[in-house]
Amino acid sequence: MILVKAGGGAGLNWPGLAEDLAAFRGVTPVALIHGANAARADLAARLGVPVRTVLSPAGISSVYTDDEAMDIFCMAYPGLANSRIVACLQSHGLNAVGLSGLDGRLWEAKAKKDLLIQEDGKTKLLRNNRTGRVEKVNAGLIRILLDHGYLPVMTGPAISRENEIVNTDNDGAAAAVAAALGVETLVFLLEAPGFLRDAADPQSLVASIPRDEIDRYGAFAQGRMKKKWLGIKQALDAGVREIFLGDGRTAHPLRDALDGRGTVIR
Amino acid sequence: MILVKAGGGAGLNWPGLAEDLAAFRGVTPVALIHGANAARADLAARLGVPVRTVLSPAGISSVYTDDEAMDIFCMAYPGLANSRIVACLQSHGLNAVGLSGLDGRLWEAKAKKDLLIQEDGKTKLLRNNRTGRVEKVNAGLIRILLDHGYLPVMTGPAISRENEIVNTDNDGAAAAVAAALGVETLVFLLEAPGFLRDAADPQSLVASIPRDEIDRYGAFAQGRMKKKWLGIKQALDAGVREIFLGDGRTAHPLRDALDGRGTVIR
Repeated sequence: MILVKAGGGAGLNWPGLAEDLAAFRGVTPVALIHGANAARADLAARLGVPVRTVLSPAGISSVYTDDEAMDIFCMAYPGLANSRIVACLQSHGLNAVGLSGLDGRLWEAKAKKDLLIQEDGKTKLLRNNRTGRVEKVNAGLIRILLDHGYLPVMTGPAISRENEIVNTDNDGAAAAVAAALGVETLVFLLEAPGFLRDAADPQSLVASIPRDEIDRYGAFAQGRMKKKWLGIKQALDAGVREIFLGDGRTAHPLRDALDGRGTVIR
Repeated sequence: MILVKAGGGAGLNWPGLAEDLAAFRGVTPVALIHGANAARADLAARLGVPVRTVLSPAGISSVYTDDEAMDIFCMAYPGLANSRIVACLQSHGLNAVGLSGLDGRLWEAKAKKDLLIQEDGKTKLLRNNRTGRVEKVNAGLIRILLDHGYLPVMTGPAISRENEIVNTDNDGAAAAVAAALGVETLVFLLEAPGFLRDAADPQSLVASIPRDEIDRYGAFAQGRMKKKWLGIKQALDAGVREIFLGDGRTAHPLRDALDGRGTVIR
């Protein structure tokens, strides 16, 4: 089984990805997870409440999600982005069904309301952060849909144990889904050629990383790749056999990634 | 089987409805359809592109949906409203799964791009209207979810035959779903005590309407009730045995409606 996690940037080539997914029909089951960063940032800016990105003491960036940011998240992720993606996949003959982590408790998370951040050289505590880490995946719901020929198209938010709507890291969720479903192949589609030794230099693509050297390469990760690296480690620990990081902007993003044109971790 | 169509007003008592739905578990299958008028109007106003309501030559009001209004619809209906409702139902122990009409082609509609309206005493033609009428329902997807103990929570948009995202009348969609599933009991929860002979007078509640007098009472329908009346006629024609119109704002909206505290059509 293949799980594809597509980033939420504006540059992702969804019609191309849809064509690639259509080629897999009848070959192996496929499920999809997507982000919606671009749609969220756009809506937040239009509403005059820009997305607030914060940095943890360990240097991992994340989004501070108060009540209003949570509403904007719901409007952008399961609302606008998921609707458009499902319609795009349907137009390519794929019987897509959109699911947020709330549906059937697909992604149940442990809420983490207090957030330590570093700002202006100090460590601060932000309260009422509506985020959580996915601990439990409703694999049964995904399997039912796959068994009946549907393509599950998952996205945040997650639901907390206490039934709150919470933001969650989609890469961490992808790792949890991969573990729950026994996924062998996990593909991350980015707005970059793959894993770069130097984020500023597209020529510094690393074509192949042995799984036991993950930590060594992780030292090169910058910005959002740091968080993705945590998800990748989590997925490898959960038994995923191979992970591809490919460019989501090419004419055939999934085919190219699986052909090894990005980064392969085995 | 019971199908509940809950209006999209801000006054609807969702926790109360959730309690009522929980009481039906194990008794009879239940599915839910909801609107999100209030969420849509609020978002549209904040974005500076207010909802445009137009009147057909026959005096039926509807919303003109251009591309931007369609995006706002997706953000408010499957985005914000559906997420909140699913989380609310989950918090009452109901394993809700949100579905828009796009998911698995749940609501397939015939697009109607040209819209005749009356404005300033003239009949005008509006083009590029992204609406459609639901012609085909994926009953199989709803049944799979019901069979596995999930509560389907449906809302617009619909998908056109040509795979476009289109707005649709939720009451008409409710009638189509009722027909496809062989629903016996259809409940409309409103922000009114039921069907009123005079919309301005809450005391003018009509407690009971024989099904063969539907047209006679339809003459009293005003505003949005005119459109609902079309959905009700469609549902009766499709074989629904009884239709309840109840007040969605009471402590126990569904229980009250089924107890005959609103309007009963048999």
